[in-house]
Parts: sequence; C-alpha cells; structure tokens
Amino acid sequence: MTAPLDPPKLGEPYLLTPGPLTTSYAVKEAMLRDWGSWDDDFRAMTRELRTRLLAMLGEGAGDFDCVPMQGSGTFAVEAMLASFIPRDGKALVLANGAYGKRSAQTMEYLGRDFVLVDKGDYLPPRGDEVAKILAEDPAITHVVAIHCETSSGILNPIEEISQATYAAGRKLLIDSMSAFGAIELKPSEIRYEALVSSANKCIEGVPGFGFVIARKAELEAAKGRSHSLSLDVHAQWANMAKTGQWRFTPPTHVVAAFLVALKAHEAEGGVAARGARYARNRDVMVAGMRELGFETLLNDRWLSPIIVTFFCPAHESFVFDRFYALMKDKGFITYPGKLTVVDSFRVGCIGQMDEHVMRKVVEAAAASLKEMGVDDARPPAIALEERAKLAA
Amino acid sequence: MTAPLDPPKLGEPYLLTPGPLTTSYAVKEAMLRDWGSWDDDFRAMTRELRTRLLAMLGEGAGDFDCVPMQGSGTFAVEAMLASFIPRDGKALVLANGAYGKRSAQTMEYLGRDFVLVDKGDYLPPRGDEVAKILAEDPAITHVVAIHCETSSGILNPIEEISQATYAAGRKLLIDSMSAFGAIELKPSEIRYEALVSSANKCIEGVPGFGFVIARKAELEAAKGRSHSLSLDVHAQWANMAKTGQWRFTPPTHVVAAFLVALKAHEAEGGVAARGARYARNRDVMVAGMRELGFETLLNDRWLSPIIVTFFCPAHESFVFDRFYALMKDKGFITYPGKLTVVDSFRVGCIGQMDEHVMRKVVEAAAASLKEMGVDDARPPAIALEERAKLAA
Ligand SMILES: Cc1ncc(COP(=O)(O)O)c(C=O)c1O
Ligand SMILES: Cc1ncc(COP(=O)(O)O)c(C=O)c1O
Repeated sequence: MTAPLDPPKLGEPYLLTPGPLTTSYAVKEAMLRDWGSWDDDFRAMTRELRTRLLAMLGEGAGDFDCVPMQGSGTFAVEAMLASFIPRDGKALVLANGAYGKRSAQTMEYLGRDFVLVDKGDYLPPRGDEVAKILAEDPAITHVVAIHCETSSGILNPIEEISQATYAAGRKLLIDSMSAFGAIELKPSEIRYEALVSSANKCIEGVPGFGFVIARKAELEAAKGRSHSLSLDVHAQWANMAKTGQWRFTPPTHVVAAFLVALKAHEAEGGVAARGARYARNRDVMVAGMRELGFETLLNDRWLSPIIVTFFCPAHESFVFDRFYALMKDKGFITYPGKLTVVDSFRVGCIGQMDEHVMRKVVEAAAASLKEMGVDDARPPAIALEERAKLAA
Repeated sequence: MTAPLDPPKLGEPYLLTPGPLTTSYAVKEAMLRDWGSWDDDFRAMTRELRTRLLAMLGEGAGDFDCVPMQGSGTFAVEAMLASFIPRDGKALVLANGAYGKRSAQTMEYLGRDFVLVDKGDYLPPRGDEVAKILAEDPAITHVVAIHCETSSGILNPIEEISQATYAAGRKLLIDSMSAFGAIELKPSEIRYEALVSSANKCIEGVPGFGFVIARKAELEAAKGRSHSLSLDVHAQWANMAKTGQWRFTPPTHVVAAFLVALKAHEAEGGVAARGARYARNRDVMVAGMRELGFETLLNDRWLSPIIVTFFCPAHESFVFDRFYALMKDKGFITYPGKLTVVDSFRVGCIGQMDEHVMRKVVEAAAASLKEMGVDDARPPAIALEERAKLAA
C-alpha cells in the first residue's frame, strides 16, 4: 500500500514545509555528476522531463505542451501571466491568501489590466461569484485562480471556477504550484488554458525551476507578448522545439534530480497514488493533532492534502518560536502561519514522508507542548468564530 | 603551486564548456541534504554567500552589496539592466558577440532606449570609440559592457571602457558572468556601478542562480524601476536586508553547493590564484593545440583565461560533430563556436581542471584528428585574414 520511503540520510530534520521539502536520497544522489547543457545526453533528459510532466494530464494531453522555466515558482507564474494574457487583456485574479495576492501584484508590475477579488485569509472564491463578476465586466478575458492556496492550505474549488469561467466564454490560468502531481488536473475534466508548478512541490524534486503546461494554441499566440526576455514562455518553447535546449543555462543538477523524482512518482502510481499518500499523511496528522487539542483553520471539506493550518493554542505558555525550536530539535521543521486575524502555524504533508513519519510529528508536538508547560492546545475563542465564517 | 583537484568520480566527461562546468565532488556532495529555506541555518548560508562574494571586490567593497537572484545568468543580467537603468535612461550597449547582443535584446524587451555598437564576432570595443559616442550623444546615461565575451573568449578592455565612461560622466554596468572570481574587478581600480555573474562560472558552483553586486546607492535608487516582480533587484535586496531570506523559494541545494565552492575558492588563494590556474590551463592547452597546427581566433593579447576559440581545420576530413563525438569518447565535452564568418570550436579553461588535465585534452585532440584522418589542423586562409583585422 504505502510507497517505500527513502528518508534523509544525513541526520537533517524532516521539512514539514510545502517546498523545499524532504526529497528522497536517490533524488539528491542524481546531483553527484556534472552535465553539459549543450550535450545530447542532457537534451534527452529535458525531453523526458517534458514528456513525463505532460503525461500527468491524462486524456487530452496532446493539445498541451510543457515548457520548463528557470527560477522559482513565482518566475513561472509571472511568465505564464505575461505570456497568455494579452497586453490589452484583462484578468480577474481570485485571491484568498498570499499567492493570489502575488499574482495580482505581478499584474501590477506587468502594467496589465486586472480586477482583484480578495476573499481575505482563506475564504474560497466560489463559482457563482465568478459568474457574477464576469457577467458584469465583459472586458475580463482571463481568470487567474490558485489551485491549493498554500498560505492557508485550502484546496480551492477549481472545478466550479473553471465552469463559471468557460460558461462566460473566458479563459482560465491556474497556479497549481503546490497541487500539481498530487491532485488531478485533467483537461478532460476541468478546462483551462495553462497551469504552472515547480520542481520542489508534489513531484518531490529539489528547487531550481518551474514549468508551464499550456495549450499549444495558447503557446503559439503568446509570441511577442512577454515583457521579459528571460521569462518569455513562447521563446523558450520555440527554442526547445527547434534545438531541444533551454535558451539559457538550465539548472542541470536540479533537472537530473527531477528526473529521478518523476520516475519515483510514476513508480508510486502517479498522481492518484501520490495524492492518496499525502491525504493519508494529512488524516493521520490532523487526527493526532486534534487529539492534542489543536484545531485546524479549515473544516474538513476544504482541507488540502498539501499543508494544514493550525491555530496557535491560547495557552499563555505557548510561543511559536519556542515550539518551532523544540520541534526542530526533534527532527521536524514546521512553518509559521500567514493568517492576519489569529496566530497560526502550518504543517506540510508533502515530501518523502508517510503516516509513520506523521505519527512521529504528532508525538513530537505532544512532547514539545509538555516541555513548554502547555497542557491545553485549544485556540482562543476568536479563532473558532473565525472558522465559523466558512460554510461546510 | 597547483590547487589540489577534486575531479569527477562518476566517470562523466570533463566539461570544457564555460558553465555548466566540471565542479568538485565536494561541491556536489553538499547537495545530499535538504534545507528549509525559511530556517535560520539556511539564512546563515545566504548571509555567508553574500559576504564572501562581496569580499572578492577587495578595497571599496563596503560601498557595495550583493543580491543573489534565482534563474540563470541571463535573468541576473536582465534584472541588473531593468533595475539600474531608469525608465527614461538610455544605454550604450557594447557588443562583440552573442552576450553583448543579448543585452541589447533585453533592452528591447524592456522598451528602454539604447544604442548598440556591434563590433561583429569579436573585435573589442575600445575606450576612444566609447568616448566619441558618449561625446556625441549626451542622452546616454549608462554603458553596458561584457567583461569576457564568452562567445569568442575575448577579454574586453574593461578598464579603458570604464575610464571613458566616467570621464564622460556616465555610469558603467558590467556583465562579468564568465570572468568574476578569476579576473579581478576591484572598484578601487576600475569604476562601475554594478556587475553580474552566476553560480556556475569561475566560482565553480552548479547552475541555478546568479547574483548582482551593486553600489548601495544604486540599489536604493532602483526602487520601483523593475519591469518584473521576479527580477526586481531592489525588492530582493530590501527583503534580504529585512528578513535574511530570498523573496521566493531559493535553489537551496545549489546554494549549499555554492558555499562549498566559495570556501574552495578562498582556500585556493582567491581571485588571483583562481585566475592564475585558469591562465596556466589556457597556456598549456593553447601551446599544445598550436603544436598540432590549430590556430586561435585571437592574438595572445586578447585571449582570456576563460575559454579559447579555435578555427576548424581546413582539412576536408574535419567535421566538427565527429570531432565532438571522438573527444567525448575520450572524456572531454567541447563546445561549438559562434563565429559567423568561419567555422570554429571552443575549449573552456575553467572548472576543476589543471594543466595535467589540459595536457590530456591536447592528447585527445591529437588522437581524434588522427582517427578522422586529419593530418593538418591548419585553418583556411580566410580565417587568418579574419584574424589580421585584430590589432595586437
Ligand atoms: C500556490 C503557490 N504559488 C506560488 C508559489 C511561489 O513559488 P516559489 O516560492 O517557488 O516562487 C508557491 C510557493 O509555495 C505556492 O505555493
Ligand atoms: C558573458 C555572459 N553573459 C551572459 C551569459 C548568460 O548566462 P546563462 O546562460 O546562465 O543565462 C553567459 C553564459 O555563458 C555569459 O558567458
């Protein structure tokens, strides 16, 4: 059932963070040799990487192509927005956290027209809202949505957003950074023009590049639109088609590592199996944390298998920095929260971890509370009021 | 005398290419663990990286700061140009090869005013030319120069370019991608506002990020100028100053590798010693190749210690693809040339290689010629006519 894990060998802590995350030792070992980026051997690696990523779309993948892009995930998001939204287009950016807001900020840099729907810290943008806004503003050409909003861990209702978008004759671009590879995004089921993700998320590679997966027709149409030479998706795509090479020096070692990660992803059973392992990680971890008294920000319906936000306990002896240090001592790196209303922290479920590791996480949390003298992990009342805003 | 080498251990060929290049095994081993990018341990690594790079400037470094930037070197060049040339500024771009032209192309993407002086495949832009152009065009605010133009291997006369620039009251930005770390660029000797380089050149790291080193006054002034969120040097700098973190996920493993490379650079004796090893690599390799009848594109005065362009032999049995394959069989990856007038190829002198390795390169070239049935490696007459254009 559970995939065999290949845990860290050098005594470093598990990264309960949504990328960089804990990768297998085999993935990292692939970085022990140097590759010439111009050489045929490396071109073959680039080809395989693109083919394997495309295959994850399932039926309908033939209409799409995959364009890797150097830099972090944000670079790939910016490249997508600048390449697929025409200079005279207009975007509706759906935000319920840091990454949605970042897409809006990117549109500002680009100087392209957009409206931002900001739902606050986590409330999901719903299909009917999207339909209403699109009906009222015919100038909007594109909707930009975040698949899993990693800042709260919410899994946004991408299917209803897609339906509303195409019902209104507009186009959808998806930031699936933290979801792609673990949550299906089949064009045969959910329509979209392009998505982005990166090497160091659910495929479990190391950070150094992102990738855009887009309809070929959109890639063709993107010519001349980019504001940036480095981030020009069309130019990168056209060059790869012609020469098999990245336009500029690729992160060769990171690419080699990613190929090993892609093979492991397939061996585990692809997107469904990867998603199932993460969901099990989440279920075991959330159940254990709730037993300790912790409360999640989100109702179960919205909890992604990627990362979970917990409210900080109301207990006066709870100090997150201390909790972080105690957890780190026990071999687990946690992540501070990003909520504006109440204090919170996050625990990631992705990476080379399974339910056994997650049980250890809960044990470590229990021990850390004890060491801090926190005998009650319940959040302040305001946190629960906050959560009540969220319909099940 | 010679630094101890730590050659490839997995049987891969030496990369006689100017980045990605052959790195030490220790550099690659640093990638065998995962790092949380938000964690203090990683912040300390970022801090050390910036401090060590700045220290390479020597006297006057205190006026500068170092801003690492995700992506390949081109991303860092674009970030530099967009951040330091105001939107209403005008650049003089000095080109004598592919990288100078790429800076001009970047200016086009940015939609900022520039004039391009294109000296063709390799002829160096000289100080008196620069002075003349600046005198005639008072609108020019910045000069953009390539330190080592890697496409031919020429070491451009950066000192006289700098003098002409500042004598005319303008500012200099330097693409020192392939030179920084092996060729001194001391602000106490050569004036400039900013330079860029990347992880996988003379510091001998693996590819995945670049860095901008700029005067603090210029970094302050860069606020709000960038066309791109991802490539905004000011924002990256301000965020690092405030939090010690990269704004977006850094290539953690590549950074860890780079730190090991930086320590090895210091242990070898810094910029001077690194440059001396490369110069010795070049001298031994060029002497050997000349003995075989090969001719360099450039006269000795212009030969950089980074990479050397050779004319392809005129002999009818010489086919570069065959030569490439034979050299690869013998453990050496060479690089095709970029000259438009005559066929050429390039041999890099940078990376974990010393004169012993370079002697083997020459032996491999001799054997490859023999296997191809080429008994005379001299270039066609037109190649030597071409070279005669270049004053000593
Ligand atoms: C949904 C989402 N979008 C964008 C990003 C930005 O990616 P990066 O930090 O690699 O720039 C992230 C990173 O976690 C993310 O989760
Ligand atoms: C002088 C110079 N500038 C720019 C670049 C571009 O760097 P990258 O290929 O990492 O984008 C290079 C790469 O070799 C270079 O040598």
